[in-house]
Amino acid sequence: MTAKRGLKDIGEFGLISRIAAQAVEGPGVLIGIGDDAAAVYSTQRRVSLITTDMLVEGVHFDLSFSDPFSLGKKSLSVNLSDLAAMGGEPRHFLLSLAIPPVTAVDILDEVTRGILLRAAEHGVNLIGGDTCSSPDRLVISITLMGDQLPERIVRRNGARNGDLVCVTGAIGDSALGLKQLKEGIRAGYAVERHLDPTPRVREGVALAEAGLATAMIDISDGLPSDLGHILDMSALGARIRFYDLPLSQFFREHTAGASPDSVLRLVAGGEDYELLFTIPPGKFHDVRGLMESLGTSVTEIGEITAEPGLVIINAGGEAITPPLSGYDHFA
Amino acid sequence: MTAKRGLKDIGEFGLISRIAAQAVEGPGVLIGIGDDAAAVYSTQRRVSLITTDMLVEGVHFDLSFSDPFSLGKKSLSVNLSDLAAMGGEPRHFLLSLAIPPVTAVDILDEVTRGILLRAAEHGVNLIGGDTCSSPDRLVISITLMGDQLPERIVRRNGARNGDLVCVTGAIGDSALGLKQLKEGIRAGYAVERHLDPTPRVREGVALAEAGLATAMIDISDGLPSDLGHILDMSALGARIRFYDLPLSQFFREHTAGASPDSVLRLVAGGEDYELLFTIPPGKFHDVRGLMESLGTSVTEIGEITAEPGLVIINAGGEAITPPLSGYDHFA
Repeated sequence: MTAKRGLKDIGEFGLISRIAAQAVEGPGVLIGIGDDAAAVYSTQRRVSLITTDMLVEGVHFDLSFSDPFSLGKKSLSVNLSDLAAMGGEPRHFLLSLAIPPVTAVDILDEVTRGILLRAAEHGVNLIGGDTCSSPDRLVISITLMGDQLPERIVRRNGARNGDLVCVTGAIGDSALGLKQLKEGIRAGYAVERHLDPTPRVREGVALAEAGLATAMIDISDGLPSDLGHILDMSALGARIRFYDLPLSQFFREHTAGASPDSVLRLVAGGEDYELLFTIPPGKFHDVRGLMESLGTSVTEIGEITAEPGLVIINAGGEAITPPLSGYDHFA
Repeated sequence: MTAKRGLKDIGEFGLISRIAAQAVEGPGVLIGIGDDAAAVYSTQRRVSLITTDMLVEGVHFDLSFSDPFSLGKKSLSVNLSDLAAMGGEPRHFLLSLAIPPVTAVDILDEVTRGILLRAAEHGVNLIGGDTCSSPDRLVISITLMGDQLPERIVRRNGARNGDLVCVTGAIGDSALGLKQLKEGIRAGYAVERHLDPTPRVREGVALAEAGLATAMIDISDGLPSDLGHILDMSALGARIRFYDLPLSQFFREHTAGASPDSVLRLVAGGEDYELLFTIPPGKFHDVRGLMESLGTSVTEIGEITAEPGLVIINAGGEAITPPLSGYDHFA
């Protein structure tokens, strides 16, 4: 048996070289990896959009659940999803890693491979970052930059009374996947959705550029919480039809015997990375056509109301109490 | 005695509100804290410069050595220093915090106050970030953006044979301060230089805009290591006069009885955050005038040579072996 190579064997500059060798410099990059800062060309007329997400081992991921390749992909996906939720076209990113000394180089190579595959899928360039040691936990911090015309950016505060509430794809699979992972199930549709969610980049950009969305957010904390941000920022309420929420066939089959409460908890569980957005009434046909042209389903799930607060109704028209007020990292 | 307020008492959104309340939105910001991404105006003709640094408790800082206010200042300073080393004018930053649940809110308020004071000193805006929990260690990750005319940016690879090597301020105090902290000394000039180094922002921008520096880096890992980066990238060598290195009066007094080896180790110890740069021969008078106009001293310490490798000579003209090949986080 060969001993796994550790970080001590390649050193900090060895690690940076391994990452840099995999990164391809793309359009708009004047200076990439290897100097004190990266330099990218500014785009005329467009404003820069910037987002950052930090993933901490034991909080956001568990390497006994997630293979490092999927972890890499997801690390970039959560940032791509944030930018998509504003309609931003992603361009460049910086990657920071704090790495426990015991981490095998193979694992880091797989994380990097996942990140750079996802980057290539969306044409974004790795332009810099930071690497350091961490006493015990892997930390991955990514900052993603993109741009958009200022008048096309979709914010959280633009919903209007009477707007329709829409969501791409299906929700709940990620939370179901996490539940299955905790039960020892290591594969299947829901597990894959949890470990490698799809950031709705083209969908977010298309909705922004078509001027169809009035407010938009990505579902990371869970539908009630994330819709709550739109409602708070827009100073409005919403009425959501629980029975119209888009659930996958897999989700329906695997929750068929479960209590309504536990189904609701999964549906509100978060990490779906679907886009949740509002549109003017009468525009759903256009939105569906646009999303279908990208191969993505979209569902109208309710409407914005003048009265503040989120009401979720069942098929009988009765209000269901939202099961979660949202994920709070410190609660 | 009143129990210290913890994160559980204020929650994630409470913490974000506390930070946002202290942050002032400045020029060039279209969307700041509170949406999925921040948006900043692009500057005509200038390129964006971006740098990021991650500080991990137990690796980069020790809260038994550093008060949280100084830690906050230093967290931003190390990024300002990186941007200064390219001649970039700093503009905006994102702040990510991974926070152990036991951390008192008072400590976080002090860290934030330090960061935002340093930001105000340099006119940079906090535009977003991420907060999450960390099982046991505080992690601070900052991404700083700035800009400069592309032809004014100073890279590491521009040194030429015969160029003079210069350094701002004095070096060695930070390493001496860290040594003193480990010995139980909690105050004094060197300790302050270690806990709250001065980023040479105006100096870096001035050198770049005057077109005086051919290559530049900030001293974070230590003079031999950081000069080594310039030499590697420029495919050249350097001859440095040890006896001309700028040392503070405090440093000289506190190392008077020490062995030459231990003095050398402190001088090469890093975290000085002074600028190390090369200039064409004959330009030192101009450089000194420019630096003095900013109230900063500058010293010419040697020259670039065609023969690769770093040679440090003593007063007798003999080569001293560089004591450290540079700080490697994984060594």
